[in-house]
Amino acid sequence: MPKKTMVILLIEDNRLDVELTLDAFQEAQLGDRVYVVRSGQEALSYLFGQEPYHNREIYPMPDLVLLDLKLPGLDGHEVLRQVKSAPYLKRLPVIILTSSQEHADLIRSYDSGANSYLVKPVSANGFLDVVRKIDQYWLTLNISPPIEDAGD
Amino acid sequence: MPKKTMVILLIEDNRLDVELTLDAFQEAQLGDRVYVVRSGQEALSYLFGQEPYHNREIYPMPDLVLLDLKLPGLDGHEVLRQVKSAPYLKRLPVIILTSSQEHADLIRSYDSGANSYLVKPVSANGFLDVVRKIDQYWLTLNISPPIEDAGD
Repeated sequence: MPKKTMVILLIEDNRLDVELTLDAFQEAQLGDRVYVVRSGQEALSYLFGQEPYHNREIYPMPDLVLLDLKLPGLDGHEVLRQVKSAPYLKRLPVIILTSSQEHADLIRSYDSGANSYLVKPVSANGFLDVVRKIDQYWLTLNISPPIEDAGD
Repeated sequence: MPKKTMVILLIEDNRLDVELTLDAFQEAQLGDRVYVVRSGQEALSYLFGQEPYHNREIYPMPDLVLLDLKLPGLDGHEVLRQVKSAPYLKRLPVIILTSSQEHADLIRSYDSGANSYLVKPVSANGFLDVVRKIDQYWLTLNISPPIEDAGD
């Protein structure tokens, strides 16, 4: 049975990393759809369904979030904190995908409720491997929580 | 480079499921060490380092917890709630591994901070596949948080 199409929200400002991630999803041919936002403020607007992202037929609620920590303005830690403090939205699996291996980032992320913490690979092949493992685990094996914008 | 030996705490009262899980870890030859506790109260004593589990050389802090929901006495939801409310311990990745696919269990688990939710496979081969994927994702790719018993 083919897997249902899954939606991923990639929160990343670095152009090269966006490109590497999108290329990896395309090459892996997993059938997932990846939406990209490039700042913490955009990410919150998307996830909370605010303008210009209020239409869920165009901007669907993701099944999974890939979140970079270093973002312009409002950073990944603040995005995570707001998502994990919000009713309903807190259920959304959030994977930190960062180049930081700093102890403080790791602790703060898990303490804020990050579901998982991955370090960015350094090559296109590395991205392909990570993207395949994310799909195999989170979008195939893991049972996603039901998330609705306004209650359930 | 061979992976470091990882420690898993399996919280499960069903004898057959314990056996299937242990057999799968053994067959997969991942080098992980699995400790088993069979009730919610035992699980909390182990994780909080209380008697008879106070010696961390004998009962090491796990890198990952596999938690069944239906347990005698104090159930998996209550174990999860206490772990995810505790400073330091809240960082520990907890995967729900249950036969329940009930909406209420799914929501309550994610709301309490479960890192992931898996449904128990129905065969020995299914367990082997799940155990391999857990190892590949959580014990190889994911960066574990540092967890110490008393502060860091």
